Amino acid sequence: MSFKKVDLSFQSCKSEYDDASVVIYSCPMDATTSYRPGTRFAGNAIRVDSFGIEWYSPYRDMSLKDYPTCDIGDLDLPIGAVEDALNVIYETTKQILKDNKKPMMIGGEHLVTLPVLQAVAEKYPDVHMIHLDAHTDLRDEFFGRKLSHATVIRRCFDVLGPGRIYQFGIRSGDKHEFEWAAAGNTFLRKFDFEGLAETIQKLKDKPVYITIDLDVLDPGVFPGTGTAEPGGMQYKDLLNAFDLFENLNNIVGADFVELNPYLDPSGASNAVAVKTLREMVLLLHR
Amino acid sequence: MSFKKVDLSFQSCKSEYDDASVVIYSCPMDATTSYRPGTRFAGNAIRVDSFGIEWYSPYRDMSLKDYPTCDIGDLDLPIGAVEDALNVIYETTKQILKDNKKPMMIGGEHLVTLPVLQAVAEKYPDVHMIHLDAHTDLRDEFFGRKLSHATVIRRCFDVLGPGRIYQFGIRSGDKHEFEWAAAGNTFLRKFDFEGLAETIQKLKDKPVYITIDLDVLDPGVFPGTGTAEPGGMQYKDLLNAFDLFENLNNIVGADFVELNPYLDPSGASNAVAVKTLREMVLLLHR
Amino acid sequence: MSFKKVDLSFQSCKSEYDDASVVIYSCPMDATTSYRPGTRFAGNAIRVDSFGIEWYSPYRDMSLKDYPTCDIGDLDLPIGAVEDALNVIYETTKQILKDNKKPMMIGGEHLVTLPVLQAVAEKYPDVHMIHLDAHTDLRDEFFGRKLSHATVIRRCFDVLGPGRIYQFGIRSGDKHEFEWAAAGNTFLRKFDFEGLAETIQKLKDKPVYITIDLDVLDPGVFPGTGTAEPGGMQYKDLLNAFDLFENLNNIVGADFVELNPYLDPSGASNAVAVKTLREMVLLLHR
Amino acid sequence: MSFKKVDLSFQSCKSEYDDASVVIYSCPMDATTSYRPGTRFAGNAIRVDSFGIEWYSPYRDMSLKDYPTCDIGDLDLPIGAVEDALNVIYETTKQILKDNKKPMMIGGEHLVTLPVLQAVAEKYPDVHMIHLDAHTDLRDEFFGRKLSHATVIRRCFDVLGPGRIYQFGIRSGDKHEFEWAAAGNTFLRKFDFEGLAETIQKLKDKPVYITIDLDVLDPGVFPGTGTAEPGGMQYKDLLNAFDLFENLNNIVGADFVELNPYLDPSGASNAVAVKTLREMVLLLHR
Amino acid sequence: MSFKKVDLSFQSCKSEYDDASVVIYSCPMDATTSYRPGTRFAGNAIRVDSFGIEWYSPYRDMSLKDYPTCDIGDLDLPIGAVEDALNVIYETTKQILKDNKKPMMIGGEHLVTLPVLQAVAEKYPDVHMIHLDAHTDLRDEFFGRKLSHATVIRRCFDVLGPGRIYQFGIRSGDKHEFEWAAAGNTFLRKFDFEGLAETIQKLKDKPVYITIDLDVLDPGVFPGTGTAEPGGMQYKDLLNAFDLFENLNNIVGADFVELNPYLDPSGASNAVAVKTLREMVLLLHR
Amino acid sequence: MSFKKVDLSFQSCKSEYDDASVVIYSCPMDATTSYRPGTRFAGNAIRVDSFGIEWYSPYRDMSLKDYPTCDIGDLDLPIGAVEDALNVIYETTKQILKDNKKPMMIGGEHLVTLPVLQAVAEKYPDVHMIHLDAHTDLRDEFFGRKLSHATVIRRCFDVLGPGRIYQFGIRSGDKHEFEWAAAGNTFLRKFDFEGLAETIQKLKDKPVYITIDLDVLDPGVFPGTGTAEPGGMQYKDLLNAFDLFENLNNIVGADFVELNPYLDPSGASNAVAVKTLREMVLLLHR
Repeated sequence: MSFKKVDLSFQSCKSEYDDASVVIYSCPMDATTSYRPGTRFAGNAIRVDSFGIEWYSPYRDMSLKDYPTCDIGDLDLPIGAVEDALNVIYETTKQILKDNKKPMMIGGEHLVTLPVLQAVAEKYPDVHMIHLDAHTDLRDEFFGRKLSHATVIRRCFDVLGPGRIYQFGIRSGDKHEFEWAAAGNTFLRKFDFEGLAETIQKLKDKPVYITIDLDVLDPGVFPGTGTAEPGGMQYKDLLNAFDLFENLNNIVGADFVELNPYLDPSGASNAVAVKTLREMVLLLHR
Repeated sequence: MSFKKVDLSFQSCKSEYDDASVVIYSCPMDATTSYRPGTRFAGNAIRVDSFGIEWYSPYRDMSLKDYPTCDIGDLDLPIGAVEDALNVIYETTKQILKDNKKPMMIGGEHLVTLPVLQAVAEKYPDVHMIHLDAHTDLRDEFFGRKLSHATVIRRCFDVLGPGRIYQFGIRSGDKHEFEWAAAGNTFLRKFDFEGLAETIQKLKDKPVYITIDLDVLDPGVFPGTGTAEPGGMQYKDLLNAFDLFENLNNIVGADFVELNPYLDPSGASNAVAVKTLREMVLLLHR
Repeated sequence: MSFKKVDLSFQSCKSEYDDASVVIYSCPMDATTSYRPGTRFAGNAIRVDSFGIEWYSPYRDMSLKDYPTCDIGDLDLPIGAVEDALNVIYETTKQILKDNKKPMMIGGEHLVTLPVLQAVAEKYPDVHMIHLDAHTDLRDEFFGRKLSHATVIRRCFDVLGPGRIYQFGIRSGDKHEFEWAAAGNTFLRKFDFEGLAETIQKLKDKPVYITIDLDVLDPGVFPGTGTAEPGGMQYKDLLNAFDLFENLNNIVGADFVELNPYLDPSGASNAVAVKTLREMVLLLHR
Repeated sequence: MSFKKVDLSFQSCKSEYDDASVVIYSCPMDATTSYRPGTRFAGNAIRVDSFGIEWYSPYRDMSLKDYPTCDIGDLDLPIGAVEDALNVIYETTKQILKDNKKPMMIGGEHLVTLPVLQAVAEKYPDVHMIHLDAHTDLRDEFFGRKLSHATVIRRCFDVLGPGRIYQFGIRSGDKHEFEWAAAGNTFLRKFDFEGLAETIQKLKDKPVYITIDLDVLDPGVFPGTGTAEPGGMQYKDLLNAFDLFENLNNIVGADFVELNPYLDPSGASNAVAVKTLREMVLLLHR
Repeated sequence: MSFKKVDLSFQSCKSEYDDASVVIYSCPMDATTSYRPGTRFAGNAIRVDSFGIEWYSPYRDMSLKDYPTCDIGDLDLPIGAVEDALNVIYETTKQILKDNKKPMMIGGEHLVTLPVLQAVAEKYPDVHMIHLDAHTDLRDEFFGRKLSHATVIRRCFDVLGPGRIYQFGIRSGDKHEFEWAAAGNTFLRKFDFEGLAETIQKLKDKPVYITIDLDVLDPGVFPGTGTAEPGGMQYKDLLNAFDLFENLNNIVGADFVELNPYLDPSGASNAVAVKTLREMVLLLHR
Repeated sequence: MSFKKVDLSFQSCKSEYDDASVVIYSCPMDATTSYRPGTRFAGNAIRVDSFGIEWYSPYRDMSLKDYPTCDIGDLDLPIGAVEDALNVIYETTKQILKDNKKPMMIGGEHLVTLPVLQAVAEKYPDVHMIHLDAHTDLRDEFFGRKLSHATVIRRCFDVLGPGRIYQFGIRSGDKHEFEWAAAGNTFLRKFDFEGLAETIQKLKDKPVYITIDLDVLDPGVFPGTGTAEPGGMQYKDLLNAFDLFENLNNIVGADFVELNPYLDPSGASNAVAVKTLREMVLLLHR
């Protein structure tokens, strides 16, 4: 008998880095959260609870165990130093992309999407972004700050330029954010996912990055998030979106953000995140 | 620098009483609750959690900050003295109406709707009532008492008379309550909101009072209530109802009741109430 | 005044055994649970919380108080001794059937369905089974064991043979389980209840046993279960299924399983189970 | 095999009423609670959780199974009708005493102690009362009411007269309450149980009634109560008090009150109440 | 009848600013928290829950209602901008001191003590500090940052110099922190409050600032804190410390920090903070 | 930059197996739990929450980072197959001992101590056992089973023989268990740790195995356990016991058991276990 150190990788994602084509990493940062913080604990909560899920997806007809994925865990982010932390995420993503692997990032608050998108856009200058969220996240500043969970998509816009961001499910924001989007800066679909099929048809041969703020789901389905916004999507709607994503021929990276595991001790919100991660990893492997 | 006393008014509802056209007040009473009490804490829970919501509603395209609303807080109700407490609510509402402001009341248990409706009916003798709820609340007595959360709509009927109350979403009650309604006393739609559009069309030029027992929502969406009744409405259904309410030309007052904040520590139920309050205040300001 | 011992039977199910035509019993066993155990506490949690529900069902237009039901409580099962415990359940069910009463069993983990089905099949050799669940439960072995919550429907198949089991709502399992079902062993509908009406039409004159794993519901509706599987059914879908079940002329027994009351302190999951029990008891009395 | 109706009596307290020398009953009333209500659910919570405790007490060297105790469950109290409810409790206690059994009452809020004490004082005019509590409960009125959880010991004083009530552990009240006690009306020991041994020596041959508000314990030990008051007693202190109570030769009845099971989902507060009930029942049997 | 805006000041602390001699303010900041954030919500949680406490303290024999205190609520702190936020706290405190009122500050994380101490030390250059805490907080840097909850007492030392800080109850820190203290920089008492009486005797005529990290209490007493450290003090020990503080003739300000209300839904931790605030406000008024 | 797989070893216990002198392993088994199961999740809960603790212990004046410890994680135990699972634990422990490392085991339910003790006793035939617990665990059978959490110390006695087991803090059990112990089979100290110093003096040069059921602590300190037993020890008492353990010259292995992380969402119980593990690992390294 010989023993190895504990391995708490996400369910069936136990490849070594060199062997993997998809790399999972989590970003324990919630420094700019304006309401209830705690998303920094999402990554490990998901790892521990992933033992409750099957490796086979009847939606994709694929199994996690058939595809090499490496889970490198929480990045080591300096507490409270927002820009330094974003830089660690940026450098990590850049290296993953350089090694010809696909990044699968887990937040943290939504601001952590920005450095991932920056690294992705350097490699794929023509990248487009699909954004599922309850919130616009299009402010130019929030409490005087350019870098915030509430400005993150605006900052992504600074990287990508107009017409490259497609937002769905949006049901909260300030009036000027909706107006700014409507001025042609982003495609913004209020309240639901209508138009997603058409968008995907249009982007099918482009490089696409997908970012999902899990609060796009109704708080009934996903109470474990800092800023619950009633009137959201059902999980079946998200599964339908994943089915549509199968038509994208070049998903170059993905993330989901804003699970706060302390807000839902029932574990149901963790289960939502765990299943979402399985489906997204499988989509990245197609 | 000069300091003022703490102001925990509901989000952006910080006008002085004299300047306001809508007045928010909460009624910390749950004395006749037959199952799990605690709704007395709803008002302040909503105030504190309202900081997590935007002042702008993309549903109404209106902002709370553009309309003068005063939040006068919890009324000072004598504990356990039901009739005295109801009288305080009645006198408060009467004064608000006399001052030509609209009452926006937050329960407490559902019985607190009765004195509000009484004051409203004195000012608007032709008032009609729209009632969204899981429960009939049509008993004539409950455990030997005339005044109870389970008899409140029957008592409102005593004030309004037949044909003036429209009930939707009802899925719990005793058999004789359904029969009594069906005998022409109230319009009662079981299980969902079908027929609401027609009702609103019919009442569009009448004075209308709206009372929402939040347990009309499914417990999945709104677990923070004393008597959860599975099989209810989604929050999107309620938002659709609010869209329909825009067609009412004379909403003279409104309330929602039965949030028990202790039953849902995730805060999701509070978020439902907070958003509902924003939408209802805006409807009253139209 | 004369006093009797405390009676905590399920709401309005207070007949003596000899007088009853339906018998409620709960099976406090969760020994083979692979994820979060605790379903052993479901029975008494339901009894205590049943005081929050009406005895009248507006769905069936029937009242519990009009039909004689006896609640015999938790069976006395040896802890950790799986086969002995299953035998107690089997013998109890056999006796209930011999006394010409209908069994209404409450789990516990899903494995407790097996001995009930065995006893039912002895009395009704032509019995068919309708199975609502998130999980296939069709493994032949699980961690080397033949008797497990993950193999229970396969074991029921060993009793009933091919073509007699109809599964709905299934969204989790290993690939080979779906393939084994598709090879003609069971009817398996993925993700929803489509086809249930046709199945019921086909089985309307057969003896039918109904087993419901409550995790067929979405975790948003029913978080109180050990292995939450997002993307499930709404409670209204389950109510619709109950309406369809009215067309079955010979329901010979029923159960529901997998409530873990400790995972949902809001009580909403208990309320789901309580209402489900009311509806199922009424269906058995038709 | 023959089946009986479910029996959820408190652990090993399953005698029939006629055979019992101690009678357990619970009073589901919290109508005058000024802070967080919910004590009405204490009785059944204790019954269900009592299965986690041994019947043998190493403190008393006695076993519940060796003494005949009957548990008659929750009394049927009219919701919200305080005086009627108190009367039901009074009549029940009177009958139990008339049948030469000892009453062991479980609250509910503290006001339910009053009718028990009244019935006890009728049978034992010389009865003295030992009162463990965080709160004085000596107000003459509370929010204009004579009958309240905050006036209950003052009302007991009205029955017993000066010098008959001994209060320990008191750490909260209004100034005038402490002064009123100090004027010779009651013996009041602030903050701890010092002097309890002397009191017991003094009362050893008197009829004594014991009432314990469990919030005398520190909220660290007993968080499941509506009005937590930090700085209280440890559970070992309460066990020491029970040891001292063994020196009382004529305990004529007892109660404990103010468990709110919903406020402590860990079950630790229920465990405190369960163990307390075991010890008190055994004391009554000595 | 005339209505005023909602007033949710802490229990009986409803004076206007100009009339008050003690000013309560809360600092909703937890940006440098290294473990579970959420202390930003402490202030309002305390306000709402203060209705459950008496205004009279039997420990001090004083009533809140007899002394003029103003509660100015949460300061308006920029989210995520640590230095800017500290500056707002500093300026606020300076003004309060200039107006000859005493500051009573509520955290937030412990770092918010620094700007208060700075303002206090400007007015009282000879100020000494008594520090009750589980943690040393003496690091010079934490994750590369000078300003952190883990460095706050070291930064206070930078202001006050050696021999002016007295730490009690410390049971967690890095080795070099204990050594640095022992080198004569601070007085540091490990594990308990021994020596506090002597310290107070020594400081009785000095200006003294008191800072209490509530995690000095055992997590059994106070689970609602981000970094629980078992083996702490009982609440009675803290009450004893307050009795000793009565011997200080010149308490010039005080704070307590690190309540995270979301981590203890029972409300017991809030009750600890509420009672602590009452006692500290009364001490400041002596 | 190069990436490694996620490492969620316990805080600072990241040595490879070959380099370590102490080996941590957790046993996810709760199959014979008679009340609330869930201890199977303790190991990973402790790993994730260990980031909240310092590596330095001011009690031992030692740091985890100075001693080589390997954490091999949860053993792979067959669900529900008690004897097979015990055998995996036995073989693992045997190998660790053969490799001249010390076993530090984390339960799971208490039965998992048996196979560890068996392996230890094979290597150290003269081993003695110190047992801290609320419960006797001395039954010969429990519900007809020889292998149970309630019989585990009796089974250890079968291995060790009379006079080799020292039990402290015991406050629950059946009468015959106390009598059997008192007949000279074990040393059993009821209620507290008195006599522990003398015991340690006696055993100081013997090989000693330490097993701690964390429910020896008061539920106020440690609510996260399945069978809470009020009246237990404070955490400071446990720390004092650890100080005494320093006088043992040959601790050959240790464990603690019965953390159920789901029962205490505040995380305070996890913190107790995390700190206990740090202290015990350091004791094993002395």
